[in-house]
Amino acid sequence: MAVYTEVSDDELRDFIGEYDIGEVVSIKGIAEGVENSNYLLQTVSDPDAPPQNYILTLYEKRVRPEELPYFLGLMDHLANGGFSCPTPIHGRDGAALRELSGRPAAIVSFLSGMWPRKVTPQHCAELGASMARLHLAGADFRGHRDNNMSVSGWEELVSATQERADEVVPGLSDTIVNELEHIRLSWPSNLPQGVIHADLFPDNVFFLGSRLSGLIDFYFACNDALAYDIAICINAWCFESDASLNITKARALLRSYASVRNLSRDEYDALPRLARGAALRFLLTRLYDWLNHDEAAFVRPKDPRQFLDRLRFHQQVNGPGAYGISFDDLNG
Amino acid sequence: MAVYTEVSDDELRDFIGEYDIGEVVSIKGIAEGVENSNYLLQTVSDPDAPPQNYILTLYEKRVRPEELPYFLGLMDHLANGGFSCPTPIHGRDGAALRELSGRPAAIVSFLSGMWPRKVTPQHCAELGASMARLHLAGADFRGHRDNNMSVSGWEELVSATQERADEVVPGLSDTIVNELEHIRLSWPSNLPQGVIHADLFPDNVFFLGSRLSGLIDFYFACNDALAYDIAICINAWCFESDASLNITKARALLRSYASVRNLSRDEYDALPRLARGAALRFLLTRLYDWLNHDEAAFVRPKDPRQFLDRLRFHQQVNGPGAYGISFDDLNG
Repeated sequence: MAVYTEVSDDELRDFIGEYDIGEVVSIKGIAEGVENSNYLLQTVSDPDAPPQNYILTLYEKRVRPEELPYFLGLMDHLANGGFSCPTPIHGRDGAALRELSGRPAAIVSFLSGMWPRKVTPQHCAELGASMARLHLAGADFRGHRDNNMSVSGWEELVSATQERADEVVPGLSDTIVNELEHIRLSWPSNLPQGVIHADLFPDNVFFLGSRLSGLIDFYFACNDALAYDIAICINAWCFESDASLNITKARALLRSYASVRNLSRDEYDALPRLARGAALRFLLTRLYDWLNHDEAAFVRPKDPRQFLDRLRFHQQVNGPGAYGISFDDLNG
Repeated sequence: MAVYTEVSDDELRDFIGEYDIGEVVSIKGIAEGVENSNYLLQTVSDPDAPPQNYILTLYEKRVRPEELPYFLGLMDHLANGGFSCPTPIHGRDGAALRELSGRPAAIVSFLSGMWPRKVTPQHCAELGASMARLHLAGADFRGHRDNNMSVSGWEELVSATQERADEVVPGLSDTIVNELEHIRLSWPSNLPQGVIHADLFPDNVFFLGSRLSGLIDFYFACNDALAYDIAICINAWCFESDASLNITKARALLRSYASVRNLSRDEYDALPRLARGAALRFLLTRLYDWLNHDEAAFVRPKDPRQFLDRLRFHQQVNGPGAYGISFDDLNG
């Protein structure tokens, strides 16, 4: 679940009074997401019209307040460019970010759609095209945020988890240290850069029927190698529960991406290294949460071992062809 | 939180296909309630019209499936009589109750409004009148369900908690056993009976502005003394956080109730005993949950001690006048 902060009647009324969105007629905490408190908010401006839906987010301690203007500015930029994502609602004073119940808070538009509980190759194809459009739409965004979940961030997480990693899987500490060493030496540094989502797991991608309706949750977005976003999606969308790669899904993802944004030879060749890095990144954060989760937060930590399996897969591939498509077929 | 059962895409599609409510365009788990899994469901029948809201409930293990026809039938009955509460949606086969993800499940209409985080006397007045209307509207409901949370239910809970009650408050076990003995000897048995809600805490009562918009969560509803519902509300609405009774709130509740449904002398006189019983009931269930809560369910158990304070208050009152209004003033 994800409602950490309770909002009182008076605080909510004062907060909503800063916006031109009418009167609140319903507010319900949403039991999804693990980082922030999210509420479904319904308001009525015209008593004869049906309620309008919004999402009210209170940013909890994992989000750094000084980074919120980047995230909200990015959503504004993308939505203004016609990309389907939550749009920050601005108050009468022009601000999208204010305070509620002692937390930074914002209201964004409600996005219809459901995230796929069971991923199909068609979902992966839709995802690939949408991610490529995101990368193109982000090109002229003027904000900048370093990816704090890249190599230097992993080094910190390795230090923080090394001592107890073997409690989860015997030998895990050595595996991680060796992998980090390998990545340090081989991490690609000259790939095309831009705005990436950096957390495009299925629960952040909405569909209406078989068509993608929009992306949500931009609170890990940052500037990094665009192809690293693809590598995250290969990890997040293309593996089956038995830890095998579904090549049909990976091929659909890559081909569809390349049909919207051309993938360079360097980007294609870097995929196995990027995929190892992405697997290590989620292995480390899940491991950290597993070892340090707060019982009082009532969040069930996700099993880190899934990403150990994915890491092992990427360690063993011969080259990017393992993801189901050759470079010539990709751009052909 | 309260989402215990995850629903897969295919299961949801098949389930919704049994109804004439259009296509699902959004489903979000709601982080409120502790008994069942609740989802906010949005559907579209006409692509040009705004989505329709519903609540989808999957009944978890605390609800006995054979009792669901009583609860759903009661909501049908009340809604048909113009009482504001969730209305069960019937499928094309006429059934309101079916199965989803291995659980009994139903869709009910969405009720606008917010439950009050901070209770005022005006809320209590609205509540009193609405509860009285509920009691009148339930009079011709043909279903019957004994209150399993009355004296015999308390006896079971006392047995189940006695051994460890003193872990929570030293001496609590003796207090409870003595109180149960007192209640057994004094529990009123000849009061007017009917359908009661039996769980009218603030989070089950919705308001739009200062006006009550409806009652929800009828899954403790049963046939019992009508005045017992009032006693539950005195406990649930009229005490301040320092454990003192707010007489203004209690008076508003009682006066407003009596303005809709006449309270008999017997009912009025029985209030202190009924209020002791109601305090014991919630003390016992909270104590049981406190001692037996399942870490894996990620539900924070509520503190039972609040209701020990209320019980002590009711033990010490001289008579029903302690709730702020004389019998003559009540019906005058």
